[in-house]
Amino acid sequence: MARPDTPVNLSEKLAGIEDHWSPRTVMEVNGLELKVSKFKGEFVWHSHAEGDEMFLVLRGELTIELRDRESVRLGPGEMFVVPRGVEHRPVTPEGCDVVLLDPEGALNTGEVEDSELRREAEWA
Amino acid sequence: MARPDTPVNLSEKLAGIEDHWSPRTVMEVNGLELKVSKFKGEFVWHSHAEGDEMFLVLRGELTIELRDRESVRLGPGEMFVVPRGVEHRPVTPEGCDVVLLDPEGALNTGEVEDSELRREAEWA
Repeated sequence: MARPDTPVNLSEKLAGIEDHWSPRTVMEVNGLELKVSKFKGEFVWHSHAEGDEMFLVLRGELTIELRDRESVRLGPGEMFVVPRGVEHRPVTPEGCDVVLLDPEGALNTGEVEDSELRREAEWA
Repeated sequence: MARPDTPVNLSEKLAGIEDHWSPRTVMEVNGLELKVSKFKGEFVWHSHAEGDEMFLVLRGELTIELRDRESVRLGPGEMFVVPRGVEHRPVTPEGCDVVLLDPEGALNTGEVEDSELRREAEWA
Protein backbone atom coordinates (compact mmCIF):
# COMPACT_ATOMS: atom_id res chain seq x y z
CA MET A 1 0.00 0.00 0.00
CA ALA A 2 1.15 3.52 -0.69
CA ARG A 3 1.94 5.84 2.17
CA PRO A 4 -1.21 7.66 3.35
CA ASP A 5 -1.33 11.27 2.19
CA THR A 6 -3.84 12.27 4.84
CA PRO A 7 -3.36 12.52 8.63
CA VAL A 8 -3.13 9.25 10.57
CA ASN A 9 -4.79 9.13 13.98
CA LEU A 10 -2.95 6.60 16.15
CA SER A 11 -5.84 6.08 18.62
CA GLU A 12 -8.27 5.38 15.80
CA LYS A 13 -5.90 2.84 14.27
CA LEU A 14 -5.46 1.13 17.64
CA ALA A 15 -9.22 1.10 18.25
CA GLY A 16 -9.60 -1.06 15.17
CA ILE A 17 -7.26 -3.76 16.50
CA GLU A 18 -8.66 -6.69 18.47
CA ASP A 19 -5.75 -9.12 18.55
CA HIS A 20 -2.52 -8.86 20.52
CA TRP A 21 1.07 -8.99 19.19
CA SER A 22 -0.08 -8.35 15.62
CA PRO A 23 1.40 -5.01 14.47
CA ARG A 24 -0.37 -2.95 11.78
CA THR A 25 1.59 -0.59 9.57
CA VAL A 26 0.21 2.96 9.59
CA MET A 27 2.99 4.92 7.86
CA GLU A 28 6.17 4.58 5.80
CA VAL A 29 9.00 7.02 6.36
CA ASN A 30 12.51 6.87 4.89
CA GLY A 31 12.41 3.11 4.37
CA LEU A 32 11.06 2.39 7.85
CA GLU A 33 7.58 1.26 8.79
CA LEU A 34 5.71 2.88 11.65
CA LYS A 35 3.29 0.39 13.20
CA VAL A 36 0.80 0.26 16.05
CA SER A 37 0.07 -2.83 18.11
CA LYS A 38 -1.70 -4.06 21.18
CA PHE A 39 0.47 -6.23 23.41
CA LYS A 40 -0.63 -8.45 26.28
CA GLY A 41 1.22 -11.18 28.15
CA GLU A 42 4.68 -12.44 27.24
CA PHE A 43 6.16 -12.37 23.76
CA VAL A 44 9.02 -14.62 22.54
CA TRP A 45 12.72 -13.92 22.91
CA HIS A 46 13.97 -12.73 19.51
CA SER A 47 16.17 -10.19 17.73
CA HIS A 48 16.07 -8.31 14.43
CA ALA A 49 18.99 -8.62 12.04
CA GLU A 50 17.54 -5.95 9.71
CA GLY A 51 17.95 -3.05 12.08
CA ASP A 52 17.00 -1.24 15.26
CA GLU A 53 13.48 -1.46 16.69
CA MET A 54 11.85 1.49 18.43
CA PHE A 55 9.09 1.09 21.04
CA LEU A 56 6.90 4.02 22.15
CA VAL A 57 4.20 3.24 24.72
CA LEU A 58 0.89 5.11 24.34
CA ARG A 59 -1.14 3.32 27.04
CA GLY A 60 -0.23 0.90 29.82
CA GLU A 61 3.12 -0.42 30.94
CA LEU A 62 5.67 -2.43 28.96
CA THR A 63 8.73 -4.26 30.19
CA ILE A 64 11.39 -5.03 27.60
CA GLU A 65 13.55 -7.85 28.90
CA LEU A 66 17.11 -7.88 27.55
CA ARG A 67 19.49 -10.84 27.69
CA ASP A 68 22.60 -9.16 28.93
CA ARG A 69 21.39 -6.29 31.04
CA GLU A 70 18.53 -5.24 33.29
CA SER A 71 15.05 -4.88 31.83
CA VAL A 72 13.65 -1.58 30.61
CA ARG A 73 10.25 -0.43 31.88
CA LEU A 74 8.19 1.97 29.80
CA GLY A 75 5.02 3.86 30.68
CA PRO A 76 2.89 6.16 28.53
CA GLY A 77 4.99 8.65 26.56
CA GLU A 78 8.18 6.67 27.12
CA MET A 79 10.32 5.12 24.41
CA PHE A 80 13.33 2.89 23.93
CA VAL A 81 15.33 1.53 21.00
CA VAL A 82 16.47 -2.10 20.95
CA PRO A 83 19.59 -2.04 18.76
CA ARG A 84 19.97 -4.31 15.74
CA GLY A 85 20.72 -7.88 16.73
CA VAL A 86 20.01 -7.45 20.45
CA GLU A 87 17.87 -10.22 21.90
CA HIS A 88 14.80 -8.96 23.73
CA ARG A 89 11.37 -9.99 24.99
CA PRO A 90 8.40 -7.65 25.50
CA VAL A 91 6.33 -8.49 28.59
CA THR A 92 3.13 -6.74 29.70
CA PRO A 93 0.86 -8.63 32.10
CA GLU A 94 -1.84 -5.91 32.07
CA GLY A 95 -1.49 -5.09 28.37
CA CYS A 96 -0.39 -1.95 26.55
CA ASP A 97 -0.69 -0.02 23.28
CA VAL A 98 2.56 0.71 21.47
CA VAL A 99 4.00 2.43 18.42
CA LEU A 100 6.81 0.52 16.70
CA LEU A 101 9.35 1.66 14.14
CA ASP A 102 11.20 -1.02 12.16
CA PRO A 103 12.91 -1.46 8.80
CA GLU A 104 10.46 -2.27 6.02
CA GLY A 105 9.52 -5.93 5.96
CA ALA A 106 10.79 -6.74 9.47
CA LEU A 107 8.73 -9.49 11.09
CA ASN A 108 7.63 -9.28 14.71
CA THR A 109 9.47 -12.42 15.88
CA GLY A 110 12.69 -11.60 13.99
CA GLU A 111 14.83 -14.68 13.46
CA VAL A 112 12.37 -16.95 15.31
CA GLU A 113 10.43 -18.54 12.45
CA ASP A 114 8.49 -21.21 14.29
CA SER A 115 6.58 -19.05 16.78
CA GLU A 116 2.79 -19.10 16.82
CA LEU A 117 3.01 -15.34 17.34
CA ARG A 118 4.83 -14.68 14.04
CA ARG A 119 2.97 -12.15 11.88
CA GLU A 120 3.55 -10.12 8.78
CA ALA A 121 2.44 -6.58 9.49
CA GLU A 122 -0.51 -5.58 7.31
CA TRP A 123 -1.54 -2.00 6.72
CA ALA A 124 -4.14 -0.86 9.26
CA MET B 1 26.11 11.77 21.46
CA ALA B 2 25.48 8.07 21.64
CA ARG B 3 21.96 6.76 21.55
CA PRO B 4 20.46 6.65 25.07
CA ASP B 5 20.34 3.12 26.51
CA THR B 6 17.69 4.06 29.06
CA PRO B 7 14.02 5.00 28.52
CA VAL B 8 13.30 8.43 27.07
CA ASN B 9 10.28 10.30 28.42
CA LEU B 10 8.98 12.62 25.71
CA SER B 11 7.06 14.93 28.11
CA GLU B 12 10.13 15.38 30.28
CA LYS B 13 12.25 16.26 27.26
CA LEU B 14 9.64 18.78 26.08
CA ALA B 15 9.37 20.31 29.56
CA GLY B 16 13.03 21.25 29.33
CA ILE B 17 12.54 23.27 26.13
CA GLU B 18 11.79 27.00 26.33
CA ASP B 19 12.33 28.16 22.75
CA HIS B 20 10.16 27.49 19.72
CA TRP B 21 11.16 25.93 16.38
CA SER B 22 14.36 24.50 17.86
CA PRO B 23 14.19 20.69 17.70
CA ARG B 24 16.12 18.58 20.20
CA THR B 25 17.25 15.07 19.31
CA VAL B 26 16.12 12.45 21.82
CA MET B 27 16.84 9.18 19.99
CA GLU B 28 18.65 7.67 17.00
CA VAL B 29 17.08 4.77 15.16
CA ASN B 30 18.25 3.20 11.89
CA GLY B 31 20.04 6.34 10.74
CA LEU B 32 17.13 8.63 11.55
CA GLU B 33 16.90 11.14 14.37
CA LEU B 34 13.80 11.36 16.53
CA LYS B 35 13.38 14.89 17.86
CA VAL B 36 10.95 16.83 20.00
CA SER B 37 10.14 20.50 19.52
CA LYS B 38 7.80 23.26 20.59
CA PHE B 39 6.30 25.18 17.68
CA LYS B 40 4.46 28.49 17.81
CA GLY B 41 3.51 30.90 15.03
CA GLU B 42 4.53 30.49 11.38
CA PHE B 43 7.66 28.71 10.21
CA VAL B 44 9.35 29.30 6.83
CA TRP B 45 8.48 27.53 3.58
CA HIS B 46 11.14 24.89 2.97
CA SER B 47 11.78 21.31 1.88
CA HIS B 48 14.22 18.54 2.80
CA ALA B 49 16.37 16.98 0.07
CA GLU B 50 17.74 14.34 2.51
CA GLY B 51 14.50 12.48 2.99
CA ASP B 52 10.97 12.35 4.34
CA GLU B 53 9.98 14.22 7.49
CA MET B 54 7.44 12.81 9.95
CA PHE B 55 5.36 15.01 12.27
CA LEU B 56 3.48 13.59 15.28
CA VAL B 57 1.55 16.08 17.41
CA LEU B 58 1.52 15.46 21.18
CA ARG B 59 -0.25 18.64 22.32
CA GLY B 60 -2.09 21.43 20.49
CA GLU B 61 -2.93 21.81 16.83
CA LEU B 62 -0.58 22.00 13.85
CA THR B 63 -1.36 22.98 10.27
CA ILE B 64 1.14 21.86 7.65
CA GLU B 65 0.73 24.03 4.58
CA LEU B 66 1.75 22.37 1.32
CA ARG B 67 2.44 24.20 -1.94
CA ASP B 68 0.46 22.09 -4.35
CA ARG B 69 -2.41 20.75 -2.32
CA GLU B 70 -4.65 21.55 0.61
CA SER B 71 -3.13 21.93 4.07
CA VAL B 72 -3.03 19.10 6.58
CA ARG B 73 -4.36 19.70 10.10
CA LEU B 74 -3.07 17.59 12.97
CA GLY B 75 -4.32 17.34 16.55
CA PRO B 76 -2.91 15.31 19.46
CA GLY B 77 -2.08 11.74 18.45
CA GLU B 78 -2.18 12.57 14.75
CA MET B 79 0.73 12.24 12.35
CA PHE B 80 1.71 13.00 8.77
CA VAL B 81 4.77 12.48 6.58
CA VAL B 82 5.97 15.23 4.25
CA PRO B 83 7.77 13.36 1.45
CA ARG B 84 11.35 14.17 0.47
CA GLY B 85 11.59 17.39 -1.53
CA VAL B 86 8.01 18.53 -0.90
CA GLU B 87 7.77 22.19 0.08
CA HIS B 88 5.85 22.78 3.29
CA ARG B 89 5.30 25.30 6.09
CA PRO B 90 4.23 24.44 9.66
CA VAL B 91 1.79 26.95 11.15
CA THR B 92 0.40 26.90 14.70
CA PRO B 93 -1.03 30.17 16.04
CA GLU B 94 -1.71 28.70 19.52
CA GLY B 95 1.44 26.58 19.66
CA CYS B 96 1.97 22.82 19.81
CA ASP B 97 4.39 20.11 20.93
CA VAL B 98 5.59 17.72 18.23
CA VAL B 99 7.74 14.67 17.62
CA LEU B 100 9.79 14.79 14.42
CA LEU B 101 11.61 12.03 12.57
CA ASP B 102 14.25 13.06 10.01
CA PRO B 103 17.41 11.69 8.43
CA GLU B 104 20.47 12.27 10.59
CA GLY B 105 21.86 15.78 10.20
CA ALA B 106 18.75 17.26 8.56
CA LEU B 107 18.33 20.94 9.45
CA ASN B 108 14.96 22.40 10.36
CA THR B 109 14.80 24.89 7.49
CA GLY B 110 16.05 22.43 4.86
CA GLU B 111 17.45 24.21 1.79
CA VAL B 112 16.67 27.67 3.23
CA GLU B 113 20.05 28.71 4.64
CA ASP B 114 19.39 32.36 5.45
CA SER B 115 16.45 31.98 7.84
CA GLU B 116 16.71 33.34 11.37
CA LEU B 117 14.92 30.17 12.46
CA ARG B 118 17.66 27.82 11.14
CA ARG B 119 18.96 25.50 13.87
CA GLU B 120 21.12 22.44 14.18
CA ALA B 121 19.33 19.97 16.42
CA GLU B 122 21.23 19.36 19.64
CA TRP B 123 20.64 16.39 21.89
CA ALA B 124 18.07 17.16 24.59
